[in-house]
Amino acid sequence: MIEKVLITTWGNPFQWEPISYEFKYDSGYYSLESSSTLPVLVEAIKPEKVILFVLDTLANIQIKGKPDVEPKEFLSYSEVVEDVRKRIKWFLYELSEKCPNLKHMLESGHLKIAVAPGIGLFKNIRVEGDVLDFYNYVIYELSRELPAGSAEIYLDLTHGINFMPTLVYRALNNLLGLSAFINDCKFVVLNSEPYPQGFSKEEKEKIISETKIRIRVVEDRVVQPKPIYSRVRDLRFSAFISSLANGLPLVFTTFYPKLDELRELIDKELRIFFENIEISNGSVKRKVAFSDDFKTLTKLYYLVRCLNSNELFKSLPADEVSVDMLEKIIETVFKKIVRLEIMTKRDVRQILDTVNKASKKEGEIGDRIRNGEKLLYLDVYNFAKDKNLQREKKVDPRNFLAHAGLISDRIYVRLEGGNIKLSYGDPDEIAEISVKSMWGKF
Amino acid sequence: MIEKVLITTWGNPFQWEPISYEFKYDSGYYSLESSSTLPVLVEAIKPEKVILFVLDTLANIQIKGKPDVEPKEFLSYSEVVEDVRKRIKWFLYELSEKCPNLKHMLESGHLKIAVAPGIGLFKNIRVEGDVLDFYNYVIYELSRELPAGSAEIYLDLTHGINFMPTLVYRALNNLLGLSAFINDCKFVVLNSEPYPQGFSKEEKEKIISETKIRIRVVEDRVVQPKPIYSRVRDLRFSAFISSLANGLPLVFTTFYPKLDELRELIDKELRIFFENIEISNGSVKRKVAFSDDFKTLTKLYYLVRCLNSNELFKSLPADEVSVDMLEKIIETVFKKIVRLEIMTKRDVRQILDTVNKASKKEGEIGDRIRNGEKLLYLDVYNFAKDKNLQREKKVDPRNFLAHAGLISDRIYVRLEGGNIKLSYGDPDEIAEISVKSMWGKF
Repeated sequence: MIEKVLITTWGNPFQWEPISYEFKYDSGYYSLESSSTLPVLVEAIKPEKVILFVLDTLANIQIKGKPDVEPKEFLSYSEVVEDVRKRIKWFLYELSEKCPNLKHMLESGHLKIAVAPGIGLFKNIRVEGDVLDFYNYVIYELSRELPAGSAEIYLDLTHGINFMPTLVYRALNNLLGLSAFINDCKFVVLNSEPYPQGFSKEEKEKIISETKIRIRVVEDRVVQPKPIYSRVRDLRFSAFISSLANGLPLVFTTFYPKLDELRELIDKELRIFFENIEISNGSVKRKVAFSDDFKTLTKLYYLVRCLNSNELFKSLPADEVSVDMLEKIIETVFKKIVRLEIMTKRDVRQILDTVNKASKKEGEIGDRIRNGEKLLYLDVYNFAKDKNLQREKKVDPRNFLAHAGLISDRIYVRLEGGNIKLSYGDPDEIAEISVKSMWGKF
Repeated sequence: MIEKVLITTWGNPFQWEPISYEFKYDSGYYSLESSSTLPVLVEAIKPEKVILFVLDTLANIQIKGKPDVEPKEFLSYSEVVEDVRKRIKWFLYELSEKCPNLKHMLESGHLKIAVAPGIGLFKNIRVEGDVLDFYNYVIYELSRELPAGSAEIYLDLTHGINFMPTLVYRALNNLLGLSAFINDCKFVVLNSEPYPQGFSKEEKEKIISETKIRIRVVEDRVVQPKPIYSRVRDLRFSAFISSLANGLPLVFTTFYPKLDELRELIDKELRIFFENIEISNGSVKRKVAFSDDFKTLTKLYYLVRCLNSNELFKSLPADEVSVDMLEKIIETVFKKIVRLEIMTKRDVRQILDTVNKASKKEGEIGDRIRNGEKLLYLDVYNFAKDKNLQREKKVDPRNFLAHAGLISDRIYVRLEGGNIKLSYGDPDEIAEISVKSMWGKF
């Protein structure tokens, strides 16, 4: 099933005024009078989920038409977030009067209000902190909320302000590029025509009643796989990141991250972030920003979430994997990067052929293979091809990349029930080389 | 030299009010009172060029503090554009009073005002058309204005409205990804804290005088190479696009586009676009939108502009190139996609070794090589290796990709003054396979 998710960024909805929005979608035509694009989009797209990004700077904002909501004295940041959520919910219920699908989503919990850290001085609140906290928080929320399988993602830019639309766009661009390795992802960006502006009160009434503003598709594309380019402090995670970017299948299976481990690291940092938000005199002050690792870890988390939805990866990480498994992984992960897929499979196939040849040949190494002993592949290669290549003391990162990380003097082979199993002798060394081959100078 | 370019998107500057903007840059601290972020950014960054995107929907807009500018009756779209440019220039000169660097840029023509096609109904003007015209026009302008060499690109999102910031961000993301194949590109995205909001007139005066709003870096990264993923109607251009994405060096040199040819196609479409803008009763109506090919052609144009700044590509396109040249091209174009570089060079090196071997061997083929005859590489290969492989009737696109497009039964080799020269026998067939291997089903 292809899951549809509608994502939207909202500035201050309490300033918006009603007008007729229209949207052509999937050979249908939809039109609704509303203060927001959301109802007509929900009616047309019928998404399985809506994610709505708003800013904490909306706390204590006055709700138009409901002046009895008094500003509160906040004692904690969670009260700030709760206040914003309450106000937005009130607005959403108003909107949903004309939109049964929206009402249903609200009541069934399929609409997520994500209150993200903003910045600035407003009558209602002052918020100080790193502007990038917004991006980090958004990518974190999306890494949990986006589907792990094939998806159509709709991003509506209409109501965003300031950095919101561009940074949410950027976060989606990065995350969907990861999902696209194994899933089919469509990314559709929407924007309505602007609300008529500059008219006097009298002119306006007439114009608004006569105008329908259209929601337009500003981008509609099938997402291409895009790896992570940044590293983290943990060498094993960075090695895995390198394996995806460079097509190193045995590095991929050896250093495949555990989802729980990633989640713990992310949650720990999130906890520190929230614990260090100070509230005083109606001001919010974030004293600690997210680390440089945070956004890379959340991307990695989403990538592993996507991969884990496929049975194939359930047994990973593994110290040793069969050639069959390696081939299936290459076919699955690199299917859209065709040249990488073909070349990497060729490298695996060469090992298969050589081990098969050795296992049929008379001699000591042949006997040991047939006995299921684990052997350095270089010895098997020399035996099968009557060569005498020597083990290199140091691995050349270029050579490592050239052979998909499957270099003969560092991998071990073993025959088990007709299957050939591969492993690295010294995973720590391999992690280092994988990292060096992507980020090191050579 | 690394050229610095500052790009910014502006909504309606005649609504903006002065405040102190501050910006920390390169260990310096800059602060200026202004109605816009532009002066302090120009003082701090000292860009070689500024590109300012505004919308044609600003035509006839009232200029605050200068109410004597009467609305005009426009007779053509170029008058609309001229009107917007005049108003923006007036505003820029006001801004530049406190900023000698900005004044200098204005007077020396290093600030480009790009009036892009907008959309919507305003008191001052109504503009109808495809919302994507904005994106197409922006990517066209940038393809001409961005540096062809290494660059630092600064994008300020602060003053953009609606779809402007996100679409300019997207255009830069795509274009810089092309430049990054051979250049060092840094992409820095800026956004100021929001202007204080919600205060009464009395409160505001005090707050504005006491507040400095900071311009923040929301993204700062070294751009990674990103190929074009879309095709165009012209098979040769599409083959070239495929060669960059898949690492096919001889396809690259054979189908390297001519800049003039691209420019002619782009200019022709642009002419049709502008000729079909109708002006009546103060309304602008765009009757023809850009074709699907347009944005791909402009990306290709920018890519070739970047490549042409390197001497190496001056002799391209070429029907026949030396192995030396091919290796240099691989080292230049794919230097940042290390695994592709290494594997592609290995494929070229194999041809070199085989031809060298054949040229030293006794026999008819050896004689013909030494005589400088052009031969099907398959024949040379069979001769050198004592094999008897046959020419395939049809080329398998997977096999074509697996060997970097250098398949033995389709390329020709020739010895000239110690150099080995390579060429395709039937370029039309190769163009088709290159396209099929990227976009076809197989």
